[in-house]
Amino acid sequence: MNSPRVDELHLQRQIDELAAISEAPPPVVTRILFSEADLQGRAFVKKIATELGLSWRQDAIGNMFARWQVSDSKLPAVATGSHIDAIPNAGRYDGVVGVLGALEAMRALKESGFQPKRSIELIIFTAEEPTRFGIGCLGSRMLGGALSARQAEQLRDQEGNSLAHWRSKGGLQQQDLASVPLKKGHYAAFIELHIEQGPLLEKENIPIGVVEKIAAPSSLRVEVRGIGGHAGAVLMPDRHDALLAGAEIALAVEHAALTSGSPDTVATTGVFRIEPGAVNSVPCRARLEIDLRDTQLSTRDGALKKIEDSVREICAHRDVGFRIEHVNVDAPAICDPQLIDLVSRACAELGLPMKKMISRAYHDSLFMAQICPTTMIFIPCRGGVSHRRE
Amino acid sequence: MNSPRVDELHLQRQIDELAAISEAPPPVVTRILFSEADLQGRAFVKKIATELGLSWRQDAIGNMFARWQVSDSKLPAVATGSHIDAIPNAGRYDGVVGVLGALEAMRALKESGFQPKRSIELIIFTAEEPTRFGIGCLGSRMLGGALSARQAEQLRDQEGNSLAHWRSKGGLQQQDLASVPLKKGHYAAFIELHIEQGPLLEKENIPIGVVEKIAAPSSLRVEVRGIGGHAGAVLMPDRHDALLAGAEIALAVEHAALTSGSPDTVATTGVFRIEPGAVNSVPCRARLEIDLRDTQLSTRDGALKKIEDSVREICAHRDVGFRIEHVNVDAPAICDPQLIDLVSRACAELGLPMKKMISRAYHDSLFMAQICPTTMIFIPCRGGVSHRRE
Repeated sequence: MNSPRVDELHLQRQIDELAAISEAPPPVVTRILFSEADLQGRAFVKKIATELGLSWRQDAIGNMFARWQVSDSKLPAVATGSHIDAIPNAGRYDGVVGVLGALEAMRALKESGFQPKRSIELIIFTAEEPTRFGIGCLGSRMLGGALSARQAEQLRDQEGNSLAHWRSKGGLQQQDLASVPLKKGHYAAFIELHIEQGPLLEKENIPIGVVEKIAAPSSLRVEVRGIGGHAGAVLMPDRHDALLAGAEIALAVEHAALTSGSPDTVATTGVFRIEPGAVNSVPCRARLEIDLRDTQLSTRDGALKKIEDSVREICAHRDVGFRIEHVNVDAPAICDPQLIDLVSRACAELGLPMKKMISRAYHDSLFMAQICPTTMIFIPCRGGVSHRRE
Repeated sequence: MNSPRVDELHLQRQIDELAAISEAPPPVVTRILFSEADLQGRAFVKKIATELGLSWRQDAIGNMFARWQVSDSKLPAVATGSHIDAIPNAGRYDGVVGVLGALEAMRALKESGFQPKRSIELIIFTAEEPTRFGIGCLGSRMLGGALSARQAEQLRDQEGNSLAHWRSKGGLQQQDLASVPLKKGHYAAFIELHIEQGPLLEKENIPIGVVEKIAAPSSLRVEVRGIGGHAGAVLMPDRHDALLAGAEIALAVEHAALTSGSPDTVATTGVFRIEPGAVNSVPCRARLEIDLRDTQLSTRDGALKKIEDSVREICAHRDVGFRIEHVNVDAPAICDPQLIDLVSRACAELGLPMKKMISRAYHDSLFMAQICPTTMIFIPCRGGVSHRRE
């Protein structure tokens, strides 16, 4: 066996080719679950995997599995994986590095003559991004058993389309959602390669981060129902403006994070839509989607309660209706100490500086950790941003 | 000559037929300038006018003129008119009452054998609603000379499409925009029939309002440019969130109206859009469209200045970029005393209670008042709302 050699130029070319498959024009990338671009992206990855001689299967939620099968092994496989869906106007590396990187690694290993003792499986998770249904990690969430088939069937997108509608766009309508979850121990280990999505590695000039803990994420939707009317005709004291209640809620979300007592609490109103959305109409409806995370479950839950109390107070004060929906309220994940140790030793062998760290962003690994020993490898990203084109 | 008789059932049927021509499903109505629905609505009105024997012309901005021509008269015509475009999810009466009502009145007058001394012209104004280009009264604004052909050519919609692009959809690309403005005195008088878009007539059970003054409207666009990033990874002190700056601006707009010193000041943020608009992304951009009106020019201008000062302070404090664009800053219009008197006397003759009032909403009449003596006749609307389906 020769020493395996990763072809960086080849990998970069593949990343650029995949980036060109997008709903938005370059240099940004948009690939939303089961859109035309997402389906083309899936086909692009499948083609590479098939050319490498990997076996291929797709489950009922659209998770894809490319397997380097070791025929005489009875041991559970080791797995790696990430996602290729992209939020509107995203960068080209988020998720993609873990998918195309794994394929390039398998190519290099195969070429070197390496004979694995266990099968190696690459998982391309469905909809890590929450764009379509407002819930992140749809594919891994179901794999790990944190979202049941029944709960998944109730998902609706912003236009009211069901998961079934979108599954049929993906050609998955015949498959049974109940078959998606994997048993505990299905894999011997899972390791995800991902860009950091934070500034630490770049700032400290360290090429590798090994993740010890993934922050506890939660997200909620708030819908405010006010009373519309003509912007010229309805006098100020008679108004029940849904946008203004929404504006106060967004500021209360920020306040809850700033006063949580922990510098690790982050809270974001990332979606804010009003109706009817005409310059001369008082807004009658506002829809907010709020993301809240912390490394400590108790601090996160405290901030969540503060946000909900604020929504109630603000809407009572402006005399508008509201509805709060919890999209997900997940617990943090602890990564496997043995795997962390293994990655650390590999870095030492290769002479690569590394740093143990917390993942503030959440990832498919959060849910894979419920099935098998899991960790993540972070690489730096420029300026700490992933969800933008730079 | 018999006494002219308006056929209310026939008029209601025509209103309902026009309401069915809509981009949005019933019961709401959406007809945005030069959309398929707007073009079909125009054809619907043209058909009625042509069947009544009225002559028809369309100018370069798409204003339409249906004329009952008196061949031997050298006197300027009298005019009436309103609009048939509708904001998203609007009601069926806004504007339409003044157009289809005028056609039914002409039908009744013709049938009664009435012989007018002057020609009577119905004007269907292009884009009274600001939905497409963010500027209200596009057609009458050009007729009255308040918007030049050169200024109009610079208009862009939210997707960046030019007026020329949309004029060609309307089949108007061959006509010269410079030919639109009318000379002072082109008409002997202009009277617009419109629903009140306020609650006063209904509340006081009065069927007719005669308008003495039309409020001074203005609108501005504010664009906030912050810095995006991953909602989990960018810690709170490092953020420059465009949505939060926008939220503070929307609240400052409300505050400016509440503290103007006049109960007549109304200020509304009717458009509020953020980018990228994903739950796990810090918003990097916010676009607001703000509408501000007052019956007093000085109070309006004071509130406008207060809003602009707030935008500057808020954006400086959050260290985000901004741009303020004045879409229109119009003066109020005073209606013609003789016309007001004429309408009042007609009400007295018919035994109809009437009330002199201010129009807080602005109308094509605001710009017609720059060409000829003008007033408006208001009729009640249910609950004071027009920009909603009820």
